[in-house]
Amino acid sequence: MRPDLIPFLERAFAEDIGDGDHTTLSCIPADAIGTSRLIIKEAGVVAGVAIAHEVFAYFDPNLVVTDYIADGSEVKPGDVVFEVTGRIQSLLQTERLMLNIMQRMSGVATTTRRYVKALEGTHTRVLDTRKTTPGMRLLEKEAVRLGGGVNHRVGLYDMILLKDNHVDFAGGIRQAIERANAYLKANNKQLAIEIEVRSLEELDIVLQTGGVQRIMLDNFDIPTTRKAVERIGGRYETESSGGITFDTLRPYAECGVDFISVGALTHSVKSLDISFKAV
Amino acid sequence: MRPDLIPFLERAFAEDIGDGDHTTLSCIPADAIGTSRLIIKEAGVVAGVAIAHEVFAYFDPNLVVTDYIADGSEVKPGDVVFEVTGRIQSLLQTERLMLNIMQRMSGVATTTRRYVKALEGTHTRVLDTRKTTPGMRLLEKEAVRLGGGVNHRVGLYDMILLKDNHVDFAGGIRQAIERANAYLKANNKQLAIEIEVRSLEELDIVLQTGGVQRIMLDNFDIPTTRKAVERIGGRYETESSGGITFDTLRPYAECGVDFISVGALTHSVKSLDISFKAV
Amino acid sequence: MRPDLIPFLERAFAEDIGDGDHTTLSCIPADAIGTSRLIIKEAGVVAGVAIAHEVFAYFDPNLVVTDYIADGSEVKPGDVVFEVTGRIQSLLQTERLMLNIMQRMSGVATTTRRYVKALEGTHTRVLDTRKTTPGMRLLEKEAVRLGGGVNHRVGLYDMILLKDNHVDFAGGIRQAIERANAYLKANNKQLAIEIEVRSLEELDIVLQTGGVQRIMLDNFDIPTTRKAVERIGGRYETESSGGITFDTLRPYAECGVDFISVGALTHSVKSLDISFKAV
Amino acid sequence: MRPDLIPFLERAFAEDIGDGDHTTLSCIPADAIGTSRLIIKEAGVVAGVAIAHEVFAYFDPNLVVTDYIADGSEVKPGDVVFEVTGRIQSLLQTERLMLNIMQRMSGVATTTRRYVKALEGTHTRVLDTRKTTPGMRLLEKEAVRLGGGVNHRVGLYDMILLKDNHVDFAGGIRQAIERANAYLKANNKQLAIEIEVRSLEELDIVLQTGGVQRIMLDNFDIPTTRKAVERIGGRYETESSGGITFDTLRPYAECGVDFISVGALTHSVKSLDISFKAV
Amino acid sequence: MRPDLIPFLERAFAEDIGDGDHTTLSCIPADAIGTSRLIIKEAGVVAGVAIAHEVFAYFDPNLVVTDYIADGSEVKPGDVVFEVTGRIQSLLQTERLMLNIMQRMSGVATTTRRYVKALEGTHTRVLDTRKTTPGMRLLEKEAVRLGGGVNHRVGLYDMILLKDNHVDFAGGIRQAIERANAYLKANNKQLAIEIEVRSLEELDIVLQTGGVQRIMLDNFDIPTTRKAVERIGGRYETESSGGITFDTLRPYAECGVDFISVGALTHSVKSLDISFKAV
Amino acid sequence: MRPDLIPFLERAFAEDIGDGDHTTLSCIPADAIGTSRLIIKEAGVVAGVAIAHEVFAYFDPNLVVTDYIADGSEVKPGDVVFEVTGRIQSLLQTERLMLNIMQRMSGVATTTRRYVKALEGTHTRVLDTRKTTPGMRLLEKEAVRLGGGVNHRVGLYDMILLKDNHVDFAGGIRQAIERANAYLKANNKQLAIEIEVRSLEELDIVLQTGGVQRIMLDNFDIPTTRKAVERIGGRYETESSGGITFDTLRPYAECGVDFISVGALTHSVKSLDISFKAV
Repeated sequence: MRPDLIPFLERAFAEDIGDGDHTTLSCIPADAIGTSRLIIKEAGVVAGVAIAHEVFAYFDPNLVVTDYIADGSEVKPGDVVFEVTGRIQSLLQTERLMLNIMQRMSGVATTTRRYVKALEGTHTRVLDTRKTTPGMRLLEKEAVRLGGGVNHRVGLYDMILLKDNHVDFAGGIRQAIERANAYLKANNKQLAIEIEVRSLEELDIVLQTGGVQRIMLDNFDIPTTRKAVERIGGRYETESSGGITFDTLRPYAECGVDFISVGALTHSVKSLDISFKAV
Repeated sequence: MRPDLIPFLERAFAEDIGDGDHTTLSCIPADAIGTSRLIIKEAGVVAGVAIAHEVFAYFDPNLVVTDYIADGSEVKPGDVVFEVTGRIQSLLQTERLMLNIMQRMSGVATTTRRYVKALEGTHTRVLDTRKTTPGMRLLEKEAVRLGGGVNHRVGLYDMILLKDNHVDFAGGIRQAIERANAYLKANNKQLAIEIEVRSLEELDIVLQTGGVQRIMLDNFDIPTTRKAVERIGGRYETESSGGITFDTLRPYAECGVDFISVGALTHSVKSLDISFKAV
Repeated sequence: MRPDLIPFLERAFAEDIGDGDHTTLSCIPADAIGTSRLIIKEAGVVAGVAIAHEVFAYFDPNLVVTDYIADGSEVKPGDVVFEVTGRIQSLLQTERLMLNIMQRMSGVATTTRRYVKALEGTHTRVLDTRKTTPGMRLLEKEAVRLGGGVNHRVGLYDMILLKDNHVDFAGGIRQAIERANAYLKANNKQLAIEIEVRSLEELDIVLQTGGVQRIMLDNFDIPTTRKAVERIGGRYETESSGGITFDTLRPYAECGVDFISVGALTHSVKSLDISFKAV
Repeated sequence: MRPDLIPFLERAFAEDIGDGDHTTLSCIPADAIGTSRLIIKEAGVVAGVAIAHEVFAYFDPNLVVTDYIADGSEVKPGDVVFEVTGRIQSLLQTERLMLNIMQRMSGVATTTRRYVKALEGTHTRVLDTRKTTPGMRLLEKEAVRLGGGVNHRVGLYDMILLKDNHVDFAGGIRQAIERANAYLKANNKQLAIEIEVRSLEELDIVLQTGGVQRIMLDNFDIPTTRKAVERIGGRYETESSGGITFDTLRPYAECGVDFISVGALTHSVKSLDISFKAV
Repeated sequence: MRPDLIPFLERAFAEDIGDGDHTTLSCIPADAIGTSRLIIKEAGVVAGVAIAHEVFAYFDPNLVVTDYIADGSEVKPGDVVFEVTGRIQSLLQTERLMLNIMQRMSGVATTTRRYVKALEGTHTRVLDTRKTTPGMRLLEKEAVRLGGGVNHRVGLYDMILLKDNHVDFAGGIRQAIERANAYLKANNKQLAIEIEVRSLEELDIVLQTGGVQRIMLDNFDIPTTRKAVERIGGRYETESSGGITFDTLRPYAECGVDFISVGALTHSVKSLDISFKAV
Repeated sequence: MRPDLIPFLERAFAEDIGDGDHTTLSCIPADAIGTSRLIIKEAGVVAGVAIAHEVFAYFDPNLVVTDYIADGSEVKPGDVVFEVTGRIQSLLQTERLMLNIMQRMSGVATTTRRYVKALEGTHTRVLDTRKTTPGMRLLEKEAVRLGGGVNHRVGLYDMILLKDNHVDFAGGIRQAIERANAYLKANNKQLAIEIEVRSLEELDIVLQTGGVQRIMLDNFDIPTTRKAVERIGGRYETESSGGITFDTLRPYAECGVDFISVGALTHSVKSLDISFKAV
């Protein structure tokens, strides 16, 4: 049981089933037993098997699931990921929610894997962002990991990320970094600090100031990224962000940045085609 | 106030903000006031303005929103949709959630509008499906409408949709339709009945049986669709479903079907690029 | 499982059982097994059997229910509706909640059936209203259907119903109808529009304006109702509303209106007498 | 603020308003301000004024309520109970929920007052039961008090009430009373114990056993009730229960019982007619 | 099942387990079965056995618990309170929450028992206060009872307790008592009234006024307490409160007060040392 | 606004206030305005000021709070931490919940500070544990930080901690570590791994195996701890745990361990004495 998913599942089922699946109630006897299989219809990376278990267990604890393929595996059309046996009414009523979760998570994992592979041979890693579906962030970040990516901060609460607004209000880069460190110290919190810079000039100020763990090179072009990485010289983690497409991913990586964050991993997901068919 | 959104907003904010936006808390004074604008960065259809109002009102009732462009409007880069004035801490803490909702809804509306336009001059309308994001179905279906599409059933509860499983269990098409009608009568429920057919033979049985409002032509090719529509002769609503891409949309419509359902409206959404910038 | 009922059941059980049924805990062994029967003590229409299943399953999934009489059936004293076997502690702790639901639902269904029968031979149907118990609207509307009635709108969200306030603010009947249609068009929503009229003069304006699906004749006397129906001539659905008692129901129906809405179906329910007795 | 009502109000508003009161949204400007009055249309006892304040405050903290008549007062047609000023959209969207609560609570209070008055001059008091609306028990019990009645136990948790099932399982009346007292002692709980008796013979056993605070004379006729009260001789509280109608209420009271419990106070409520009209 | 605990357990498990007990998931097979014992490691009074049953049943209905020692018993190191058999993953995932509850409840019960014993031979009883852990008040008050103490009011809602603020605002002691009685009468509520006095002069005013059930002697020294008790002469219940330590407890009791309230029962709990060990 | 606290506050207020603070409602006019001060009555470290803001804002957004002393400050009797002005009804109804939170948090912070100071001059840091109050873990861990301590894992989900059970089931230390690493790799999760050892022999196996970040020396005596730290030689973080009292804290630290975890920081909290007094 994953207790953190209970409110999500409660609401998601209520949204889909409401006062009943009247089609199934009218046609399928309550005691009819059957088996359905999760079948892959498109090459990709499967994700959400563990969540599917939660969906089935929440709705009907008597459903029995047998897994054949593990979360994070590369799959091809025809692959059977798992098999579920139990009341057919339950199979039909859990199908859509389970597929909606798994198709999205597998879509995220598949896209992530594609980016990860494009970086093979470099030391650069792919980061996700906060551009996720409201209410599903943890599942989407789980899918990013299953695809081989690395999670950026979960939310506003688990990292300091100083952007232009914060810098402007603090009165400058140095002041923003100082305030952030003072705040963490006053609250004795152990959060990493990252700062966004938009030019080599801003970078220089950060380098003079110190007091951060990571520097985000925001909307830098490739040559400038290369210069920035050199200038940083490994003293801080580096992240390229903004306007990087799949095609420019590798050139950026070859500048030597540690991370490239890609909103498209989660904000524009192409679902993976998967079906759930009665045996 | 839209009371149906409260649990969604409560959870979505908790997910993003957790125990606090520590960056903002460290750098922005609690009493600093500012204004931010929602700016379109990519041509499309804007959707979610009404929901953005709910996001702001829920988080900080003192934020003042001024709208410039209405939900469902076609927008181009640079358009300012609305302007919000109030505590900067609130602006920064609502920004991501509001954008995640609006970008997705606008993405759905934009895609839908593209399909709707492709059908101009036909009487065929675009339907969504249940392939939505768990927890956001109502918002995504709202976006489909703002894009010009028509909502298919909301969930399993507001329409009877007889698929192969139901037909098989009932013992045949005629029996499934009879059971569905008997069920509705016994419960005195007013739900439309749609039945999926996979061949002209199955269609003929439905036509002999009657007792439905709509017939779904599942995975029919174009010539067979044309024959089916002729054979149905306007006695029932018709819906084409399965394997229809943007490119084959119009040829299917030209067969004369009333509806074409398109899972891609919601299951593989490309977010519309939108930003929220301090003035 | 009906997921939409979970929060209702959670709260209803907490309200009744609190920190425990101390009487039962003190006297009945945890492993004592028994059977109880739902016995009708007063003639009427039984409603809530399906909900009783949800009550039992939510509280104790090991209770086994055997149904003898279906929801919506006419019952007489002594009829056994169902039988439940399982832990006696569970039978005693679910009894009151189950009865409170079934007695009310059966009361609603019984009253509705009486109105429905009074209309036999006319084409007029009985509608419920929004005068329901907060938190139980869906169950009460289900009971109305089981009694043979028809549900009016569920809430403020699923139909447009223009009343005097709306008309006054819009600046007149024509303007209100235009605004409503414009709103639906702007939001691409498919809601029926009903307008309340309080005189034949107002009716005439509606008839000139068009743009609605149903006209509510509010507090019309019988002769005026007859005139109104004639004047409408079948072009719009008609609903009589306001001050109609059981005794005047049929004369109103004989004016030819399509619907008569009756708040008393749900706002002043006489519960049906039912007991739950150990075998 | 009454924090215990928040979940009730959240769900009740969601049930009625869903994704919006589209009629009002289409016709009433968001900034239109107005005043409405709660007007009594039928003689009775008003109840729910305090709850109405909670409804308004929850939905729109800017609504201003001015009270003219206090909860529990006897009212006649035309009386104005309170006046509310604020956004007309808010007035229209809170109206139905507020009325549904107040009409039911006032109905309960009115019925209770009628029973209470019928007992004037006796020392007998009217008790409610657990036959209440799921989710509204506290409000209905509040209405009983405002009508002049006394609350019986709130739920299964705040009193021991030994009925036939418990007695049978315990092996007899003496054993049931002993188990109940032992249970309370073991848990150091301070709950009153009431026991139901169905004959003078059972009463005698209770009188020999002692160890209870109240004796319920279940379905006793009037002469037997008189004998029972004499035999009890004031040593225990007495409650008549079962089959007592308004007409037999006083004769029962004149037997000298302390309490008469009346399920009809809450299980078959005739709502009081009340309206909420714009000034 | 104790339905009132469900939201507490849902949140407590989510807090501890989040998206999974990854240690256990990595090392313990899902089908491994085992048995663990609750072993006392420090002398005291055990409390929370009934709650532990709820914890286990909520998380995994297939866990089987066998009790050896009842709630409220005095225990010594080595005593085995209960034994649980079932999936080891479930045993490990419920362990910490169950122990956190039982150690605290047993700590409260143990402290209470110590105070209760110190009063043996007097008629004075120990009361708890509202100084409890937010969200756990009912469990802590249950532990007080299991320790032999008596519960003071549960919250602000189940008793009137007039303190200095209330007296000052009402315009004096007499006025405060009158207002409280008038309020209860107007609302027909049956709540006990207690009033706090801070001197013999204030006490005299209360005695002249009457209209209360209990008098709290707030921060009285021992000689003044004795005088106060004499002056009250048994006409009202008496409660000593404020600054009473374990050492002065008995001298206060010997003044003859009925109750002594002790915040330390719950606000500064030393947990009882208990472990949960695999057999 | 801290959205993560809303459900906690909703439940905590419902628990304390229920259907109303009847004392205040009877004596204090709804429009009476006042000011109260939070006054320290015992030397210690104050914690919970930020949470108090949330309590006030949740209950009554019109309360105005002025802070004088920051969270984490050392305070002495008489210090005024903050001042709140607004409706007296609100001040009285928030008082107890706010104090219950602040007294506990300040108690935790005060104890933690005492331990932290005892370690001054060493590099050893104090860790909390999962022995917290169900439902309040995040607040208690916040208090530990404000006292100068360091948070151990929040729950079972954010670190791998291999204990004897896991080792036994995995078949040995090496196997447990391998499984944990394999699990993290398969799920691409970035969690630290800590392993508990109970002897130098076990330590040696860990040192040979590697693959962990921290080693917990469980119930080691001081000389053995010293040997263990030497043997580990800085290659892994070290944590002493089990049976360490305030008196033995420093000797353990002087062995050179990085962390000492102390359950008593949260499981047996002595509340700090604080009052909230009307000015």
